[in-house]
Amino acid sequence: MADSISLKNGKIVPDIVVSRLPLYLRSLARLQEEGKEVTSSQELATRLGFSSAQIRKDLSHFGEFGKQGTGYNIAFLKEQLKAILNLDTAWDVALVGVGDLGHALAHYGRFADKGFYIAALFDNDPAKIGTEINGVTVQHIDEMVDTIKNANIRIAILAVPVKVAQQTVEKLVEAGVRAILNYAPITLSVPPEVKVQNIDPIAHLQKMTYYCKR
Amino acid sequence: MADSISLKNGKIVPDIVVSRLPLYLRSLARLQEEGKEVTSSQELATRLGFSSAQIRKDLSHFGEFGKQGTGYNIAFLKEQLKAILNLDTAWDVALVGVGDLGHALAHYGRFADKGFYIAALFDNDPAKIGTEINGVTVQHIDEMVDTIKNANIRIAILAVPVKVAQQTVEKLVEAGVRAILNYAPITLSVPPEVKVQNIDPIAHLQKMTYYCKR
Repeated sequence: MADSISLKNGKIVPDIVVSRLPLYLRSLARLQEEGKEVTSSQELATRLGFSSAQIRKDLSHFGEFGKQGTGYNIAFLKEQLKAILNLDTAWDVALVGVGDLGHALAHYGRFADKGFYIAALFDNDPAKIGTEINGVTVQHIDEMVDTIKNANIRIAILAVPVKVAQQTVEKLVEAGVRAILNYAPITLSVPPEVKVQNIDPIAHLQKMTYYCKR
Repeated sequence: MADSISLKNGKIVPDIVVSRLPLYLRSLARLQEEGKEVTSSQELATRLGFSSAQIRKDLSHFGEFGKQGTGYNIAFLKEQLKAILNLDTAWDVALVGVGDLGHALAHYGRFADKGFYIAALFDNDPAKIGTEINGVTVQHIDEMVDTIKNANIRIAILAVPVKVAQQTVEKLVEAGVRAILNYAPITLSVPPEVKVQNIDPIAHLQKMTYYCKR
């Protein structure tokens, strides 16, 4: 995603800017929890390790959110960023693969706290089909395309084994999914209109050992 | 990390190049599992969604790994990349925070499979101190700095609540940790010699909803 760009209200916004907005949102939520009502690009910069100029430039893609000298109203900026990121209403999410990892993810309370409701669960293990997690019944993977289409689900979390990851993704795309959080340690092939974010702790660790001396 | 650069054998290698090496390694391992012995920058490009020119350019920072027309020997390139990433011998890892997430991570077999041994566990919950996970005893967080120093551990996985994440990181850095895989949804402040990789599924999802139409 980092190299491409997209349009918002007729303006071109680099993907790298979009990818920083959730971090701004997270910092604003944290400042609010600390009881603060106003912040500045300097304070956000200190918290996030970016420059204040970059933060002002990123936000300027979307409008004027603060006044020179008075800073940003935290609640207002947070609501604006949520609207920009399409987070002003909740999203239903399909979780595919209810093994150890999928089970842990189905129980992860922060998804619902942040407006991502695990609304459908799928697996191919007969022992799991029909069981319930947090009030959602695990369905057979063969029902996945129809269920996702009927429920108009756009987001999926993929927690299946590597060997079936690509074929599962193709079915998800067919069903209308446009955003995939991928926990399978493989690079997925998807059409350009589908976004993928990968979570592979091993790859993350290996990015750092390059710099480590024993 | 994406904006900075580093030196390897006197040569400057952009961090963004380093960050792609684990993905090359993962693809090579997969090709090997499929029984292949030789690959090409074209084949890797197809699998990874990069251009073959970029793959050749990335690898050229580190040496000559293939011959024009004959491609790359997979086993050889894999070993070379492992050596470049300092993965030719295993790493001990400290896991801090043994709540639900930390417990799941302590049981995640792929860490050990890929040479990352969870060698020390820490928590502040009296009920957990002294219990064993996979043969490793959970120690009190107050013992963390001494244990990590004595064992010369350089890598930590952080799975503590947000409220104590920054203070815990400061102790890890004091103890000599130089690479932190951070699962707490907060931007950590660390000195420049310390690398941090963040895993926050919510932030990953929010990067994608920007592009999602309902």
